[in-house]
Amino acid sequence: MVTRSDVEAAAKLVAGRVRQTPVLCVDGRDLGVSGELALKLELHQHTGSFKPRGAFNRLLQSPLPAAGVLAASGGNHGLAVAYAARELGVPAEIFVPVTSSPVKVERLAGLDAQVRQVGEHYAEAFAASTRRAEETGALVVHAYDQQEVVAGQGTLARELERQLDRIDTVLVAVGGGGLVGGIASWFDGAVGVVGVEPEGIPTLHAALAAGRPVDVEVGGVATDSLGARRIGDLAFEAATRTGVRSVLVPDEDVVRARRLLWSELRIAAELGGATALAALLTGAYVPRQGERVVVVVCGGNTDPSDLAPHRVR
Amino acid sequence: MVTRSDVEAAAKLVAGRVRQTPVLCVDGRDLGVSGELALKLELHQHTGSFKPRGAFNRLLQSPLPAAGVLAASGGNHGLAVAYAARELGVPAEIFVPVTSSPVKVERLAGLDAQVRQVGEHYAEAFAASTRRAEETGALVVHAYDQQEVVAGQGTLARELERQLDRIDTVLVAVGGGGLVGGIASWFDGAVGVVGVEPEGIPTLHAALAAGRPVDVEVGGVATDSLGARRIGDLAFEAATRTGVRSVLVPDEDVVRARRLLWSELRIAAELGGATALAALLTGAYVPRQGERVVVVVCGGNTDPSDLAPHRVR
Ligand SMILES: Cc1ncc(COP(=O)(O)O)c(C=O)c1O
Ligand SMILES: Cc1ncc(COP(=O)(O)O)c(C=O)c1O
Repeated sequence: MVTRSDVEAAAKLVAGRVRQTPVLCVDGRDLGVSGELALKLELHQHTGSFKPRGAFNRLLQSPLPAAGVLAASGGNHGLAVAYAARELGVPAEIFVPVTSSPVKVERLAGLDAQVRQVGEHYAEAFAASTRRAEETGALVVHAYDQQEVVAGQGTLARELERQLDRIDTVLVAVGGGGLVGGIASWFDGAVGVVGVEPEGIPTLHAALAAGRPVDVEVGGVATDSLGARRIGDLAFEAATRTGVRSVLVPDEDVVRARRLLWSELRIAAELGGATALAALLTGAYVPRQGERVVVVVCGGNTDPSDLAPHRVR
Repeated sequence: MVTRSDVEAAAKLVAGRVRQTPVLCVDGRDLGVSGELALKLELHQHTGSFKPRGAFNRLLQSPLPAAGVLAASGGNHGLAVAYAARELGVPAEIFVPVTSSPVKVERLAGLDAQVRQVGEHYAEAFAASTRRAEETGALVVHAYDQQEVVAGQGTLARELERQLDRIDTVLVAVGGGGLVGGIASWFDGAVGVVGVEPEGIPTLHAALAAGRPVDVEVGGVATDSLGARRIGDLAFEAATRTGVRSVLVPDEDVVRARRLLWSELRIAAELGGATALAALLTGAYVPRQGERVVVVVCGGNTDPSDLAPHRVR
């Protein structure tokens, strides 16, 4: 179980290692929805996603073996672990599925990590990484189901709380659930947390329906960031304990949300980073009048080539 | 002359019409320079640049004729005027040079403006717009040398002052000087203001050297945002009155600054929007130890296709 004080401790530890990312407040009408919206621009974090929060919290709490650190990842967690390892002066070996985007694989190589491409989805890369860790003795940094990782991701929520004087609801994309688990652990029920998932990867949704984490099929446009097969135990515990709600969005609306972020706000997010916004666009989540909603824009590791000009406001 | 109280009045008038844009603080080392940097992310403004600040301040202070409003622009000012006109329910006619980027021209059309492409640079488009305004009686919104426009751009500085507890120096790109003039008028010498220009369009630099606004040749990569032929009288007055400094940067470093903003921070700026940062990269401006520097990232109307993956931190 991850508590508010675990997140507090994480925030102390990672301070100076992670960036405080800004919040952009916009009139929802600019995006075709009602009310005021606050966007947490976490894509400006080191390596382009929130993942260094958890990675640093794990690395800074553990003795670092000479074999260095090892992680399996859709891509962004690997980037964060490779970055943190480089900053702390240890080697990193990163397992990604062959479906990881070329942008992410190229950036991994740029961070001096040993990159291994194995399997079609995160789960296979993870299995290979576990075998390898037994051989090398490297420190394993789990992409979402590890105490330090979940607590580290929660520092995003703590930071957000200091940036806005009121928050009613936070919308956040869910893969394995490290981010939503950390955010829910920090707010501990005092703020509504809504986990948003593409219909093709409903890990949280399926777990809430089944009453326990269950495997799901993994498919659709956002698999390279949200493509875990099953929600983490820590995230599931935090979600059920604090009353996290779950909504699903079609892939086409995730694509639309990404395009709108660019055309209306000049934010170049990746599909996983635009998923939370899609819940408002589709009406999967409808805020009450006057509700103060925050949308976490959690990643920007995208090839922006397809963000062609579009109707602007 | 534009005063601090003109900017104060402008801020009241445009409140609710323009967005408060966020500030991102980063360790300069992430960009290869020393010290702490704050980036004012004005590319997230409506229409993708700071220009709506001045446009709304002009439109909201003037009776709006049935013929609507008219402007000449490298592109961004036109977008802002077209946007403000649409919001206020009047037609807009916008003159841009043929060198204006396709991204901007396409977006202008998307804002229901009548777009006229005339001449190679801003100055020719401006001449054509003046003749046309006499025919139609539309309200002219100058791109930089108009009291209300300069005061409106100054609201960026007022906003910035409230966002940071200390500012020593603001680095800002200069075209016709509306933005630097407004910022300088607000700070009125209390904060250092440095105007940054590509070597190929040194309007402020040449004016300071000559002791008065003079025509310059217009060339290089950033002409579609910074391509005025001569600094405005209002900007020149504000710059000399408040001690604005001027530095020049080579085009190649403007290009490099734009790429770094993407690769290290996932900010997709246009070349004019990356020009201020180039002054730090080249050492054209070297902050003292501990100096608190703000870089204004003033525009994002770019085709992001060429922001390919790059070495990440
Ligand atoms: C951009 C982005 N958003 C969301 C997620 C999902 O995070 P989590 O697995 O912690 O739910 C990821 C995971 O890689 C990601 O990269
Ligand atoms: C992105 C951007 N930056 C800077 C400028 C320069 O502004 P000014 O003409 O007020 O100096 C412009 C003008 O169009 C612009 O579009």
